Amino acid sequence: MKVCLPILFQFLSFISFAQQNLVSYVHPLIGTEKMGHTFPGATVPFGAVQLSPDSDTLSYEFNGKYNGDVYRYCAGYKYEDKTIVGFSHTHFSGTGHSDLGDFLITPTQGTLQLNPGVASNTKTGYRSAFSHANEVAEAGYYKVKLDDHNILAELTASNRVGFHQYTFPKSDQSHIILDLMHGIYNYEDKVVWTYVRVVNDTLITGYRQTNGWARTRTVYFALSFSKPFKSYGQKSEDKLQVYKGFWRKFDQTKNFSEIAGKKIRMYFDFDTQEGEKIKLKMALSPVSQENALANMQAEVPHWDFDRVKTKAQADWNKELNKIQINASENDKINFYTSLYHSFINPTTYMDANGQYKGLDQGVHQANGFTNYTTFSLWDTYRALHPFFNLMQPARANDMVQSMLHHYDQSTLKMLPIWSHYANDNWCMSGYHSVSVLADAIIKGAFKGDAQKALEACVATSNHRDYEGIGEYIDKGYIPSTSNRTSVSNTLEYAYDDWCIAQIAKKLGKQDVYATYLKRSENWKNVYDTSIDFMRPRLADGSFKKEFDVLQTDGQGFIEGNSWNFSFFVPHNPAALVQQMGGPKRFSARLDTLFSMHLPDKFFAETEDITREGIIGGYIHGNEPAHHIAYLYNWAGQPWKTQERIRMILNMQYKPTPDGLGGNDDCGQMSAWYMFSSMGFYPVSPGSEAYSLGSPSVKSAKLQLENGQTFTVEAINQGDKNVYVQKVLLNGKPLTQPIITHSDILKGGKLTFYMSAKPVKK
Amino acid sequence: MKVCLPILFQFLSFISFAQQNLVSYVHPLIGTEKMGHTFPGATVPFGAVQLSPDSDTLSYEFNGKYNGDVYRYCAGYKYEDKTIVGFSHTHFSGTGHSDLGDFLITPTQGTLQLNPGVASNTKTGYRSAFSHANEVAEAGYYKVKLDDHNILAELTASNRVGFHQYTFPKSDQSHIILDLMHGIYNYEDKVVWTYVRVVNDTLITGYRQTNGWARTRTVYFALSFSKPFKSYGQKSEDKLQVYKGFWRKFDQTKNFSEIAGKKIRMYFDFDTQEGEKIKLKMALSPVSQENALANMQAEVPHWDFDRVKTKAQADWNKELNKIQINASENDKINFYTSLYHSFINPTTYMDANGQYKGLDQGVHQANGFTNYTTFSLWDTYRALHPFFNLMQPARANDMVQSMLHHYDQSTLKMLPIWSHYANDNWCMSGYHSVSVLADAIIKGAFKGDAQKALEACVATSNHRDYEGIGEYIDKGYIPSTSNRTSVSNTLEYAYDDWCIAQIAKKLGKQDVYATYLKRSENWKNVYDTSIDFMRPRLADGSFKKEFDVLQTDGQGFIEGNSWNFSFFVPHNPAALVQQMGGPKRFSARLDTLFSMHLPDKFFAETEDITREGIIGGYIHGNEPAHHIAYLYNWAGQPWKTQERIRMILNMQYKPTPDGLGGNDDCGQMSAWYMFSSMGFYPVSPGSEAYSLGSPSVKSAKLQLENGQTFTVEAINQGDKNVYVQKVLLNGKPLTQPIITHSDILKGGKLTFYMSAKPVKK
Repeated sequence: MKVCLPILFQFLSFISFAQQNLVSYVHPLIGTEKMGHTFPGATVPFGAVQLSPDSDTLSYEFNGKYNGDVYRYCAGYKYEDKTIVGFSHTHFSGTGHSDLGDFLITPTQGTLQLNPGVASNTKTGYRSAFSHANEVAEAGYYKVKLDDHNILAELTASNRVGFHQYTFPKSDQSHIILDLMHGIYNYEDKVVWTYVRVVNDTLITGYRQTNGWARTRTVYFALSFSKPFKSYGQKSEDKLQVYKGFWRKFDQTKNFSEIAGKKIRMYFDFDTQEGEKIKLKMALSPVSQENALANMQAEVPHWDFDRVKTKAQADWNKELNKIQINASENDKINFYTSLYHSFINPTTYMDANGQYKGLDQGVHQANGFTNYTTFSLWDTYRALHPFFNLMQPARANDMVQSMLHHYDQSTLKMLPIWSHYANDNWCMSGYHSVSVLADAIIKGAFKGDAQKALEACVATSNHRDYEGIGEYIDKGYIPSTSNRTSVSNTLEYAYDDWCIAQIAKKLGKQDVYATYLKRSENWKNVYDTSIDFMRPRLADGSFKKEFDVLQTDGQGFIEGNSWNFSFFVPHNPAALVQQMGGPKRFSARLDTLFSMHLPDKFFAETEDITREGIIGGYIHGNEPAHHIAYLYNWAGQPWKTQERIRMILNMQYKPTPDGLGGNDDCGQMSAWYMFSSMGFYPVSPGSEAYSLGSPSVKSAKLQLENGQTFTVEAINQGDKNVYVQKVLLNGKPLTQPIITHSDILKGGKLTFYMSAKPVKK
Repeated sequence: MKVCLPILFQFLSFISFAQQNLVSYVHPLIGTEKMGHTFPGATVPFGAVQLSPDSDTLSYEFNGKYNGDVYRYCAGYKYEDKTIVGFSHTHFSGTGHSDLGDFLITPTQGTLQLNPGVASNTKTGYRSAFSHANEVAEAGYYKVKLDDHNILAELTASNRVGFHQYTFPKSDQSHIILDLMHGIYNYEDKVVWTYVRVVNDTLITGYRQTNGWARTRTVYFALSFSKPFKSYGQKSEDKLQVYKGFWRKFDQTKNFSEIAGKKIRMYFDFDTQEGEKIKLKMALSPVSQENALANMQAEVPHWDFDRVKTKAQADWNKELNKIQINASENDKINFYTSLYHSFINPTTYMDANGQYKGLDQGVHQANGFTNYTTFSLWDTYRALHPFFNLMQPARANDMVQSMLHHYDQSTLKMLPIWSHYANDNWCMSGYHSVSVLADAIIKGAFKGDAQKALEACVATSNHRDYEGIGEYIDKGYIPSTSNRTSVSNTLEYAYDDWCIAQIAKKLGKQDVYATYLKRSENWKNVYDTSIDFMRPRLADGSFKKEFDVLQTDGQGFIEGNSWNFSFFVPHNPAALVQQMGGPKRFSARLDTLFSMHLPDKFFAETEDITREGIIGGYIHGNEPAHHIAYLYNWAGQPWKTQERIRMILNMQYKPTPDGLGGNDDCGQMSAWYMFSSMGFYPVSPGSEAYSLGSPSVKSAKLQLENGQTFTVEAINQGDKNVYVQKVLLNGKPLTQPIITHSDILKGGKLTFYMSAKPVKK
């Protein structure tokens, strides 16, 4: 008798944690309107390919100059738009700056047009009008009707392969456009070089190098067609090249297989029958055309679109089922869409054979880990990476490994700040890699060399010529004359230093611990006791005279004014409470923050968020305030934490395209939602502690990678029952609004007893 | 007793063919003045690095537009110039088009200047005046005093490493400039991308990608300094980049180790003592920074400049000693400088570990062969490759292997036309790879798969959409309306087809042989019997009406008018003699060619040569006529071949900087010299036959790779004794002015009896 053990085990696992079809709660269109900056297209969890429609991008044909509106098209697609340019293969999810948009493909029919045209008149180019009525966006699947061409476009993806399925009308003028000039953040000269070889009538390979937000970035591709094209060609906008001049030996515009230049658009011609499907597989690689082709062979060696879609959605279901919640339908949509958005970035940056491009622009072999990129660390250290350490510890370990390899490849000897595709763009403040490392080490997710991790943290934090670190070390703060974000930087460095101290403590490095614990108190150096606000200081120690606590720009802060940033001591709220005059004054200030009026002129300078992203003066749409609502817990008023958390969950997350009040920021906004909706939040990553709030779910069952199950239950849950009467951990009442990571890892149950009345004790 | 066998064998070999110091006869400055286009710097035989001074190049700072004078600086250095910009690492030798000039290094002292400045005033930049009195150019070694900076510069090289030695004065402002904008054929936007990482204070690595004559070309480097620089920096001429704008976190201009952009110049600062030497090793790779570093370790793991120089000159001596001649001192200089120039190109295009970049821009491993690039085939198929098949058959085999791999990597499925650095620029006419393959196969140098070689030849010659091939196949000639070099192309295709026929014949492919032998007669289709000249034909079969046999441009020819090209039937001179009316009329026409006057207006359109490169209407400075002087042998007047050959040897090759009347063309002009000065020449490569002329040497001893020695001896040699009375091969008189390759391979002696009187019989 043959027993198939793997299937048996799978079945047993199925019994213990029955899979639900949670993909149905994922609405990728959430966040695509206004400032969410998410994309609606197809991707798999942490996939290298994000195949998604671009409704527009800044294109230098229409706007040759740098445009402040660059933020608008961070994800390539705006729900408000009426036309689609085409489908490109790489997209950030929720960022506040942009790049990518590689390899735009657009099916058309009729007269060949090789420029995108303008949105106001789709007849001017290959773009098409579309209607949301004809649009379906699911996890791992996207469908839309391109009205101008009467073509149904369907997209799905594996990790490294974007799979297109286009249903054409009958036409002897059907075309597939491959626009190699298209890109997101596509200023003049962004495309540094493009190389394409037409291998045969169903396969092309090549690469494109861009100088965008990632300065030196090359993406290799292999593109396979299910049907041979009958002819093909290119239009180049390049100036004279040697090959095009005197020595021209070929007609390079048509059926010429060796193509290179900076500004190239290609087309492929077909005869199609009514309803005929043409499928395309576009595989990407950071390393080589050869690897791109091997990725295609490894992941999608067939032409079965539905099989790829089914696999993509099964992969999503597997990830989504790691947390099963009981909640209202809308809350389920919010929750699982948040979970979906949390598991998009960081992205796989490694070929099927383990090769990847390093920060040194060399090819490396990833031994024993998956290399990841797209680290939006200023955002994601707060809740996303802690969420990974809870629900994705194996991947979290690989992410830390990826960051340590980045460090190894860096001549600057720095951990990543904001890195993607073998580059660092050093965006935003702090050196928050150290928080990610500390959290993974403290919580046991990191399985590598912690000693080496500590060395990398110490080296990064002592890089004197990086954004004021030298003066920060010498003076304990960054003078406002040296750095335009001197206060927020000082505050963030202080928190980061506390993280380093935690690693040192765990490793028994007492001297390092003492040094960094002392540095972690530097927040006090920018606290002006005369006004009880964080405030810019000059090199001579005096505080900056012209100062407005409501203003962000030019006041030493970024994405948050002093009102918000004055609460930024996540590693020591108790000390901050004392500094601000004790629990009563502290909570009164919190009350003011949530209820004040922020005049429009200050809103205008607050980046990346809608008016709805603000509650009073509290700015949830940006990240610096994400921990603030939990600070009432330190002021003896946890019921205010509870009501604020529920208010934010309610106001800032909606199951609609405009449902996000600010950039999702690679999943940080979403991770905040998931933690908070389950009733706990990592106020200070690098610590084992979670601060308790008010769960909005009725229950949540977390299937941990160590095999344990941890359940959160909210007894007497309801929209008005936002206050917590008591909390039991495995049946025992908690005396403090805190649980630890170890508590969760052991498995068990956290029971909240909810009420409509605050428990003021 | 210990016997060191290798040394013993070396000693025995030394006895049998005692090495002479032939490097002393190599004068690299020959050809650097006027139109020779050779470079004076340091290289080893077939080396990947050509480290040589650039006295100027077309720089877009001073001339933003394409300039017809691009030819002037093909080799970067003109003897006529008074200043040196610096020393770059890659140079063509003798070409008529340009590219390369990678990684210019200039030592300076005093105030830092980061632009080259203008030749008329060296104070405007980092360039320096120099004097030929302070200049030494040897095979593998170059030395010059940079007057403006009082720095002695010395250069040598291994295969992949350029070694600089700079002797500085005492200064606390000594600098090494690394100009990454500099290049040869340096039109605006040639530099596509540059990436540099400063690994530590003695090592930098990086790469540069250019869009020049090679369209997609990347050279990786590793640059090591013998002394740590005290500081460094860069100046970028780039427009705004993301990293330089709002989010600027570093001062990127100074001591910042991660550098990238399109227009970058770097500097490295030193304190120097009087007479202090700073040495630099620059290793190149076509594949990666890592490979460049490995190449440096493999070839020059030390800092001993003299050791590298000694090795380079020993390598040259080994190659030069393959032919030992007895001749006048000037003839020895001409001969060994020609031999030197013949052994520069093709160049090694492969790392020490066997990796190279293919035409598909992918990385390949060369298994069992050395990969070569820089194939100037329209020039070099004539005498240079035959010379390799005689004196360098192992390398000739590798060259053919390289060409076949190029074919494999080509989506066009074509053998190289004019290829360098993983690109084909398809320069000039014909598909002369097939001649190189045929000659190597017929002469036994090629050890690979001849069947596959034939397939590649057939595929290339049937590429209908390449430069008129389709019409050539259909009509037997290319209509003048389709192609601006329709006649020369038709003639060259016909010869090439004969070469393919020879391979087919050898392989017993009778049908292929018949097809191509028929195609080889296509020269007759452009022969206008009414005027007895080759002449453009229209598509309807009629000859072009407006026609001038003296004119090249617009008449269907390239680098040669109808007067010269009408003799271009190298594969069947006997038929041509008949076509032209028999021996008498034929030789009379040859007489006219050598004695006519070419009016200035026709000279003006003759590219790349000086007035001295012309004898009557015979243009030796360009290649199409190189076989013509030998054609008297087919007209029963070998004494005229003899006197013409001696005249050309005398007039066209001089031991002076202006000694070459035209481009050396990667060694073709030099190979002509060596064959002709030894008394035989391959009129029709692809044939075993050499046509005899008049040797100018007293004797030449050829040490063949098969171990045989073949000696040429000229009895009664003298400047006036240019006529051959009789020729003995191994003591037996020859009845025809022909010897075969097999005759030579067997070893033996060819004895010419010279006389001042022609033997007219």
